[in-house]
Amino acid sequence: MLDPEIAGAGGAEPADFYGELVAAGLLIPAGVDGAFGRSHRFESVLDAVNSAISRASIDDQAEYCVFPPVIDRRIIERVHYMDSFPNLCGAVCSFFGNDAEARALSRRIHAGEPWADALGMTQVVLNPAACYPLYPTLTGTMPWGGRTVTMLNWVFRHEPSREPTRMQSFRVREFVRIGVQDEVLAWRDTWLARGLELLRSLGLEAVPDVASDPFFGRGGKMMAVNQKEQKLKYEVLVPVNSAAAPTAVCSFNYHQQHFGETFAILNPDGEPAHTACLGFGLERVAMALFKAHGCDADRWPGEIRRRLWP
Amino acid sequence: MLDPEIAGAGGAEPADFYGELVAAGLLIPAGVDGAFGRSHRFESVLDAVNSAISRASIDDQAEYCVFPPVIDRRIIERVHYMDSFPNLCGAVCSFFGNDAEARALSRRIHAGEPWADALGMTQVVLNPAACYPLYPTLTGTMPWGGRTVTMLNWVFRHEPSREPTRMQSFRVREFVRIGVQDEVLAWRDTWLARGLELLRSLGLEAVPDVASDPFFGRGGKMMAVNQKEQKLKYEVLVPVNSAAAPTAVCSFNYHQQHFGETFAILNPDGEPAHTACLGFGLERVAMALFKAHGCDADRWPGEIRRRLWP
Repeated sequence: MLDPEIAGAGGAEPADFYGELVAAGLLIPAGVDGAFGRSHRFESVLDAVNSAISRASIDDQAEYCVFPPVIDRRIIERVHYMDSFPNLCGAVCSFFGNDAEARALSRRIHAGEPWADALGMTQVVLNPAACYPLYPTLTGTMPWGGRTVTMLNWVFRHEPSREPTRMQSFRVREFVRIGVQDEVLAWRDTWLARGLELLRSLGLEAVPDVASDPFFGRGGKMMAVNQKEQKLKYEVLVPVNSAAAPTAVCSFNYHQQHFGETFAILNPDGEPAHTACLGFGLERVAMALFKAHGCDADRWPGEIRRRLWP
Repeated sequence: MLDPEIAGAGGAEPADFYGELVAAGLLIPAGVDGAFGRSHRFESVLDAVNSAISRASIDDQAEYCVFPPVIDRRIIERVHYMDSFPNLCGAVCSFFGNDAEARALSRRIHAGEPWADALGMTQVVLNPAACYPLYPTLTGTMPWGGRTVTMLNWVFRHEPSREPTRMQSFRVREFVRIGVQDEVLAWRDTWLARGLELLRSLGLEAVPDVASDPFFGRGGKMMAVNQKEQKLKYEVLVPVNSAAAPTAVCSFNYHQQHFGETFAILNPDGEPAHTACLGFGLERVAMALFKAHGCDADRWPGEIRRRLWP
């Protein structure tokens, strides 16, 4: 799960950098904050970052798959997402009415009236965390040595903002490790080092940090404190908007047996499996590169270009 | 805009083919009809199809961009999508309440009660047609010769089904031509021939057809008749579930001046621009290939493999 929070506070006005990215023809304003289009030149950097991550992960021999941007609503109900982040959810609603109700809906829309109450909930929600759709597919007993899976999924968070790294909709290159506790924690630590190395090799000033999720409400503050005390979440931070307030571009979460218990994912010894995941926010890494090396990728240092386009 | 309708009726039980694709490890059931995961072997075929389309489109010199799966709600309000296809929409709703309301929401969810009425509408909806987010970005005057844009976007239609080609969430490789009427219609006709040639070169029995959209309700039937009479929509059909009821894998729409007028997209002479679009349903083309050549792409005829992986 990639944490959308920016560590720290202060620094330059973040909307400035959004304006720069638009002026350079990298982002395309699309009427809503955090849901802009990406140009060809932006996508070619994002694709190169994704490929560089694939090369760095070759030892994992991870199974690759893709899930669509919408997932089974029961997943977010069962993993308690709505208890912790109700304000970030994106539930998909549609129209289930008849001809006359459709005509009434049309009149309301053309009169500029709200129309949410004419809709009903569907079975799907927008996927809020790249790894979520995977767990229910793993119910059963893992092989010895566990499994490693990688995905490239679109993720949604309802937090519209002009700040360019705080998107409503973005892509996460995700890895999930399932197994016994020692395997899972060793794998996470390997990746924490590997992620730092990869980002630094691209000329980014990457630093690790113990982190927490943006849990909702007053009760959420205590959950965040517990999460930090148990060191369940790490992030890699890189300057994007400013050096003073770097942005999380990579996030590492150890879930203990939470998903193993919820979805009956068992180790060969019959115990619920441990899981950990890590996600690279691909748009954020691309933006960090544009910030560090300039908006014209053709003029980036040869060493960086060779690492991205070998 | 890609029409999700299957032409004709009858033939083999379509859910059979879904079961085959799952058994072959190509699709991954994910709890909801039409929102399954795609395996590595499925994705490698889908990527190859997308690249083959890029090669076929080289003369277009189209500008490439990507829009996220969610778009500005005002777009579907302004283009009258909700008048024609309200039942297919996916409006994104979220939680805007306080601490106490969040606790009440949590209790309802854990009690298994419905919770749609605890949500409010956001500014975004799922994108129902790959080309929609482009038009508002084109407001202004086109250059002489117009423009051609291509995109790879996730599209949503609320029509859950076990039939594998009728997905809720899928990818469309889209092309849009903006210009004067003659340019736009000539471009569409070129692509109709080019699309047929491309699909036939991959060993698919592709046939063109005049088509209509699945307009909602009684009034919708008349709109569909008009659309067919004016030949505004063509499709290319290919056997997927059965030869008797082939599936639309490519759709060509001429919009006349509809988007030009709605979004003030003008030709150099000051008149609203004409637009046309075409979209390849990438999952559908991949499924058609698995149907025609078998579920193991390593064993496909050498000629087909060389065209997909040159």
